[in-house]
Amino acid sequence: MADKESGLGITVKKEDDMPEWYQQVCLKSELAEYSTVKGCMIIKPNGYAIWENIQKTFDAMIKKHGVRNAYFPLLIPEKFFKMEKEHAEGFNPEVAWLDKAVTGGERLAIRPTSETIIYDSYSRWVRSYRDLPLKINQWCNVVRWETEATKLFLRSREFLWQEGHCVYETEDECEKDTIYYLNLYKKFIEEFLAIPIMEGKKTDKEKFSGAYKTYSIEAIMPDGKSIQAGTSHNLGQNFAKAFNIKFLDQNEKEKFAWQNSWGISTRLIGALVMTHSDDKGLVLPPKIAPNRVAIIPIAFEKNKKVLEKAQDIFRELSKHDPILDDRENLTAGFKFHDLELKGIPLRIEIGPKDLEKKEVVLVRRDTGTKKSIKISEIKTQVDKELETIQKDLFEKAKKRTFEKLVQSENLNEVIKFIKERKIILIPLKNSKDVEDTLKEKTGGAKTLNIPFSQPQIKNKKCIISGEPADYWVYVGKSY
Amino acid sequence: MADKESGLGITVKKEDDMPEWYQQVCLKSELAEYSTVKGCMIIKPNGYAIWENIQKTFDAMIKKHGVRNAYFPLLIPEKFFKMEKEHAEGFNPEVAWLDKAVTGGERLAIRPTSETIIYDSYSRWVRSYRDLPLKINQWCNVVRWETEATKLFLRSREFLWQEGHCVYETEDECEKDTIYYLNLYKKFIEEFLAIPIMEGKKTDKEKFSGAYKTYSIEAIMPDGKSIQAGTSHNLGQNFAKAFNIKFLDQNEKEKFAWQNSWGISTRLIGALVMTHSDDKGLVLPPKIAPNRVAIIPIAFEKNKKVLEKAQDIFRELSKHDPILDDRENLTAGFKFHDLELKGIPLRIEIGPKDLEKKEVVLVRRDTGTKKSIKISEIKTQVDKELETIQKDLFEKAKKRTFEKLVQSENLNEVIKFIKERKIILIPLKNSKDVEDTLKEKTGGAKTLNIPFSQPQIKNKKCIISGEPADYWVYVGKSY
Repeated sequence: MADKESGLGITVKKEDDMPEWYQQVCLKSELAEYSTVKGCMIIKPNGYAIWENIQKTFDAMIKKHGVRNAYFPLLIPEKFFKMEKEHAEGFNPEVAWLDKAVTGGERLAIRPTSETIIYDSYSRWVRSYRDLPLKINQWCNVVRWETEATKLFLRSREFLWQEGHCVYETEDECEKDTIYYLNLYKKFIEEFLAIPIMEGKKTDKEKFSGAYKTYSIEAIMPDGKSIQAGTSHNLGQNFAKAFNIKFLDQNEKEKFAWQNSWGISTRLIGALVMTHSDDKGLVLPPKIAPNRVAIIPIAFEKNKKVLEKAQDIFRELSKHDPILDDRENLTAGFKFHDLELKGIPLRIEIGPKDLEKKEVVLVRRDTGTKKSIKISEIKTQVDKELETIQKDLFEKAKKRTFEKLVQSENLNEVIKFIKERKIILIPLKNSKDVEDTLKEKTGGAKTLNIPFSQPQIKNKKCIISGEPADYWVYVGKSY
Repeated sequence: MADKESGLGITVKKEDDMPEWYQQVCLKSELAEYSTVKGCMIIKPNGYAIWENIQKTFDAMIKKHGVRNAYFPLLIPEKFFKMEKEHAEGFNPEVAWLDKAVTGGERLAIRPTSETIIYDSYSRWVRSYRDLPLKINQWCNVVRWETEATKLFLRSREFLWQEGHCVYETEDECEKDTIYYLNLYKKFIEEFLAIPIMEGKKTDKEKFSGAYKTYSIEAIMPDGKSIQAGTSHNLGQNFAKAFNIKFLDQNEKEKFAWQNSWGISTRLIGALVMTHSDDKGLVLPPKIAPNRVAIIPIAFEKNKKVLEKAQDIFRELSKHDPILDDRENLTAGFKFHDLELKGIPLRIEIGPKDLEKKEVVLVRRDTGTKKSIKISEIKTQVDKELETIQKDLFEKAKKRTFEKLVQSENLNEVIKFIKERKIILIPLKNSKDVEDTLKEKTGGAKTLNIPFSQPQIKNKKCIISGEPADYWVYVGKSY
């Protein structure tokens, strides 16, 4: 597979045609491809290895916080859906139902999300304050029957995710933990994926169907469109009341529980690709790259010592899951090209002349910078270089994100900014109608989230209705 | 959750009513429970933690062999199913189809297994001998619309598994690797789950729909019924021809590829429970137990030093993921009972008197044996004890398995043995009719597999048809 497709580089520039460029990077670096099944995608080994790293890293973080994994059924009876009205209305258009001829007349849905099936269990599991907090997560597939065109990782009818579902005694505890998971997402994504995160609260229009409050993390892409990279919902007592999740408190008094749910998905891989990659192909931050290092022996066919040293280095750098490309029938140039396309963060070249000088050449994927180093120092130098790449990628993405951010109180200016693909902080009223009008007048801009840190809102007017504004909120185009 | 349900011990004996005992162990040790969705189960955190250990361990084994993970769509178009005739016929009765009103008229199935959807991709991915061998695996959920009653882990409409799908240049290579995965299953299950495995080849009647040859690993349960714990199918060129998976060999000649597929599932957890557990509840081999050790400080409420020492030990034994039960409102007896129910392999008790003597008491879950040891030696002693438990559980299960095995060439004797719940090695003809008759005459016994190591078969007659037998095959009742 590798030899065949990697000969073809990316044929458009990121700047010129981002959607086409994005698709080519995903396909040619073999992260994913379209399936014959309409609306679905295949996550190929290169893409799945990134998802495995996301899972492994984030799973350890939530387990440290006391969350345990479980698995609930794929199929959800219609009656559960209907129990929380807003939830049912919100998800109904996207639900894939089973054929009644199979189910014997029962209407069963493939889960688009699992609140209802999980909370049916919770209504039996939660009895006393001693059972709380209950912190459970599942890693699974979900199906949402979208009609929009498939975009690899960003929009497909089936995707993979984690969904955490917790139950608490008090509103305060619930809210605190809802924010805890939001911050954990931010920490994980900024530290490992090197994607800058803007965290905040969703407006009522944009919140999760059935939630009391929804918090989101948004990532601004190089084209100025935002990706909702994760959400953490404070469900209040909405589902507890719908599913009768009650507990006896310390005073033997029966109370409804408080709940949250939170999720990130394979969408993150899409954000990762778009944020860092370039016209040569994939660029991966070292901390999430399945292979951090590739070792390329040069002119080794006639020089056994070059290959032997390359093998030594391969063993020495094992913690970075290195690739040793010792294929004999391919030129070094072809291999460089292939590694660039696949996004290996650091390339190590070693040829006969390097060996004489007891050196190797390090080449950074992100900048192309070359550097000769002593072989004796390879471990520390590689560690240092990978750290620098990770840091630089994040700083670069942060700088670009900040450049997109503007503030405005004037609708015409906002319309202009939207055309320029900026993300604009505006004063707005909390109203569905206002947001509908905003979308219409700006040609499709939506509210992203309300940042926690707010400029003075007193005496500010909603840029749509002219009435007193409720908050400053970011608006922009989004994926 | 823990406090509430664990007060109730197992109320039937394993010997007296194994199905009821099994269900109680699963429910009361909180491994799993029945879902409101008919035929489906919920894998609770205690059960899922075992599955995570199975995944982690086996995943590392296949990756070492060059297998990479990927993810293919949940939904399979009907036309793919129909492409391999035997496969379609075999799975058709168990397929859950989507509502055509959702799919716009297309018939889409929830995957009962993924050969067809994966091989559609392979037909595009495989072009040259350089693309081979192709070794891909996926961990996912599958749905088989069974009508038999749900048995936790053993039989449910949805279950979790891994399915490996490999493509090779030659028949020989394919066959060798098919056996390789079979042996890897045996090694993994015997070494980690401490369940003795009988490996062999399935008869034509019992082979996988669409396979050329099916190999299986069978585990004999204490009640004398067998569990098919995993299968490895040599698919020959059946699917390659159906899906047009061809490659150019080194001489530029076009050839059909050879393929295999292989899987183990959450069923293994059922076999694990049944093999080792007892009338007090779950018994887990240390190598697969999520927590190997539990530390119980005794009378610590008035003796701070006891608690402090227990905490020291907790830290010292961290590699065993210990539990420290320092709940104040519960008696030590209650805690012991709870840990026994949950199957923690080794209990460490420490009370004021132990502390005076600088000792702790180790109690083995499997045998109940107690032993005082010096605290200074705790690390090595615990390691040793856990190793011994692992070894003893396997030896015990092996002894019991061997006791069930008999050999016979006489139908009446076989019928008697089946009543006694033995597993019988018999000479048989390779024929569906013969196996149907066998099943009928024995009240439900099936062929399990044909062991690789065969007694002399020449001149032996099939115990059903009287014609020359093709092989010695194990028969018995099975789950």
